[in-house]
Amino acid sequence: MQKLIHELTNILDAQYILLEDQDKAPYLTDWRKRFTGKALAVVLPCNSAEVAQIVKLCSEFRVAIVPQGGNTGFCGGATPDNTGTQIILNLKRMNQIREIDTLNQTITLEAGCILQTVQEKTSEHGFLFPLSLGAEGSCMIGGNLATNAGGTNVLRYGNTRDLCLGLEVVTAQGEIWNGIKGLRKDNTGYDLRDLFIGSEGTLGIITAAVMKLYPLPISQWTTLVGCESIAATIALLNLFQKRATSLLTGFEMMTRESLELTEKHFPRLANPLKGNPPFTVLIELSDHESEEHVRQLLETILEEAFENRIISDAVIANNLSQANAFWQMREHITLAQAEEGANLKHDITIPLSTLDSFIQKTDQLMRCKFPGIRIINFGHLGDGNLHYNIAPPLGSDPKQFNENHEKEIHDLIYSQVERCKGSISAEHGIGQLKLAGLRSHKGEVAHNLMLTIKKALDPHNILNPHKVVSI
Amino acid sequence: MQKLIHELTNILDAQYILLEDQDKAPYLTDWRKRFTGKALAVVLPCNSAEVAQIVKLCSEFRVAIVPQGGNTGFCGGATPDNTGTQIILNLKRMNQIREIDTLNQTITLEAGCILQTVQEKTSEHGFLFPLSLGAEGSCMIGGNLATNAGGTNVLRYGNTRDLCLGLEVVTAQGEIWNGIKGLRKDNTGYDLRDLFIGSEGTLGIITAAVMKLYPLPISQWTTLVGCESIAATIALLNLFQKRATSLLTGFEMMTRESLELTEKHFPRLANPLKGNPPFTVLIELSDHESEEHVRQLLETILEEAFENRIISDAVIANNLSQANAFWQMREHITLAQAEEGANLKHDITIPLSTLDSFIQKTDQLMRCKFPGIRIINFGHLGDGNLHYNIAPPLGSDPKQFNENHEKEIHDLIYSQVERCKGSISAEHGIGQLKLAGLRSHKGEVAHNLMLTIKKALDPHNILNPHKVVSI
Repeated sequence: MQKLIHELTNILDAQYILLEDQDKAPYLTDWRKRFTGKALAVVLPCNSAEVAQIVKLCSEFRVAIVPQGGNTGFCGGATPDNTGTQIILNLKRMNQIREIDTLNQTITLEAGCILQTVQEKTSEHGFLFPLSLGAEGSCMIGGNLATNAGGTNVLRYGNTRDLCLGLEVVTAQGEIWNGIKGLRKDNTGYDLRDLFIGSEGTLGIITAAVMKLYPLPISQWTTLVGCESIAATIALLNLFQKRATSLLTGFEMMTRESLELTEKHFPRLANPLKGNPPFTVLIELSDHESEEHVRQLLETILEEAFENRIISDAVIANNLSQANAFWQMREHITLAQAEEGANLKHDITIPLSTLDSFIQKTDQLMRCKFPGIRIINFGHLGDGNLHYNIAPPLGSDPKQFNENHEKEIHDLIYSQVERCKGSISAEHGIGQLKLAGLRSHKGEVAHNLMLTIKKALDPHNILNPHKVVSI
Repeated sequence: MQKLIHELTNILDAQYILLEDQDKAPYLTDWRKRFTGKALAVVLPCNSAEVAQIVKLCSEFRVAIVPQGGNTGFCGGATPDNTGTQIILNLKRMNQIREIDTLNQTITLEAGCILQTVQEKTSEHGFLFPLSLGAEGSCMIGGNLATNAGGTNVLRYGNTRDLCLGLEVVTAQGEIWNGIKGLRKDNTGYDLRDLFIGSEGTLGIITAAVMKLYPLPISQWTTLVGCESIAATIALLNLFQKRATSLLTGFEMMTRESLELTEKHFPRLANPLKGNPPFTVLIELSDHESEEHVRQLLETILEEAFENRIISDAVIANNLSQANAFWQMREHITLAQAEEGANLKHDITIPLSTLDSFIQKTDQLMRCKFPGIRIINFGHLGDGNLHYNIAPPLGSDPKQFNENHEKEIHDLIYSQVERCKGSISAEHGIGQLKLAGLRSHKGEVAHNLMLTIKKALDPHNILNPHKVVSI
């Protein structure tokens, strides 16, 4: 491998080829600290030509490449294996915004751009870049695309996939596909763009993209609403979809148990709704007309919901800081869970028509099988996306509990997901974490289609091997 | 081939295997009558199991299959070649709506459902199925998916691709992929769905789908607006996008020359705007709040546009029949063209930021090279999608003119499309019509990726060969 390293120095300045353990260390462990690998080297190219040359070289040497962005993934997709033979190709130096096209309402940017930076830059130009998620301060667009990241704005603006119009990709052969186009309609052959998006760096390395921009809303109203049942939360969602349609930009559900946990660790974020109802929904409306218009619409819909006994209580945020506090309640659930130690996460989607059945049945089975267990269930209900997380009973050792029961708990929950025709990964992808379960979840035909595509596009299996599918 | 025909009778009742010339004839010519082929047989399966068996059989016999829906495509994608060795697999008997899920706001339906029937059925349930296009009375969902059809609602609701959540597909091996799921988020591996959508039956045969539904708007306002320049129409679009955002459901541009032609053949559809301005824009707003709300919004925006001198004239439709007449003006351009005889169509997309330059330069080159030529330019401006059609000079024979100049005209227009980073097929696909031009348009890398995928998924080249890509 010395020869490979030597040839790398013909492509990159030595400072961008990390070989020492202490230099490589920050790139070797995933954000949740579930996976740690080893790497022959970490390389830091600064443009797509360099990426292409590196891939070509690695292809000759049959050395595997693990593409990496902000390294904030939840499924270990950007962590190398333990052999020490793989190369991490981190894209953080490819962080240029190439163009903001205000007439076409698009931005062309490189894979290493940090999401929050993109939000800020586009906002300066009067536009909204709607992708928004917990890790936005450090995650990168390339990673968002590679995992088809979701977040809190999916309800209105879609996943990362839906925001993307064009891509630049380095193939497994080290060629550059220039698909950088800002077109809303383009029916010229197979949808290569969407094939690369969500493929977690296993089919190609995304180096740049053209993304959609939207006009910035001029007014947002945030409210917390209490519901007595999951059926009521869905009725509420349908009501808002009918009356507010695309003004509805947030619809987040939090169970009583989730918010009790948040309050325990962050007392200032206690639920302002009286008695912390069984289900609290955070609703956000965004408007381009006027503050008065959206406030009035919100009140009209809430009145209708009260009259129809869909909701039991509601608090509208009176100012930005209160609105932020409502969102913090939602976002601090994950942090509160972390305070309690290790927990088992399930990032799932369930069709809204079977969601009630899913929650009732799964809750019941879980509590029956594991008395005292805490079900921290919350999520982007507007998309049918639950973060159905499990914390061990109070007093038990989380690590021990998880070791003993992890598989059983996953199996129980995922079998209910299958019963309800849901998905075992809503927005976090497959990576290595869910690799083993994918075949049975997708079925033989779909899994074989994926294997066929992987083998065809990456015949030497050098792009992020043993992630998503294993050939 | 007698053996194949015989074995087909083990799968289908004889009445669904058309062998006689007069029975096959209606399936052999495309809608625009540009392509006529021959077929060994036309088969009419009624469920996906039958489709799978037919594909398996054809795969064994290495007989090519041309999947077909309503046969309304513009690019000959559903027409067989001239060898008489191919089988047309028409899906019209697979026309069941399997489920309308009102909570999840989805519809599950088979490939042979006629678009207009779907619109009507969903409307009865209080929902909008937004896909809408000229051929909706006869085109089928399977064909819409296979070509990723566009239409007049793309601006707000996206292409057919954007409306689809799940698919059922018969592979080239005659296996059934059951991807029938109604999930808004699902990051479990490669995006097979979007790979099949728009692949025009060359990678698999779509037999059923889950599509998104939307709440029906309660009020729509349609207006015709006059602009002096293409730059003004784009400024107007940006203004409406900013103020009306997703209430903007239609933004169609028609040039003076287009509407002169419409008026010539359909005098009752004369442009009500004084003097038939250089560019007439049809704008539609749809609202879920109230008639008053949307009317007021429309007037406010038009006032702003007048003040900023973006528009010179405007007529708001006072009733539904006037609104329909405005839409008919737009839709009759194609019919008016047909009255004049053969013409050359260019279904292209141009980014809004280069659209002005595209039109000015292309118009100038065309008029300079072909004096007296008529440029019938209109389209879904909100998506950057032009139907840049060419009619020969008055008095010349259309057929002769096209024969003499077709290639030269295509080359001139498409070279301007390339200069402006546009697409040579916005919404009609590739089929056989644009097969030859695809390689240079996409570039070697993209084209090779497509070929690789085609070879991998359909190694015996039995699914709609020599459409989209030719292996």
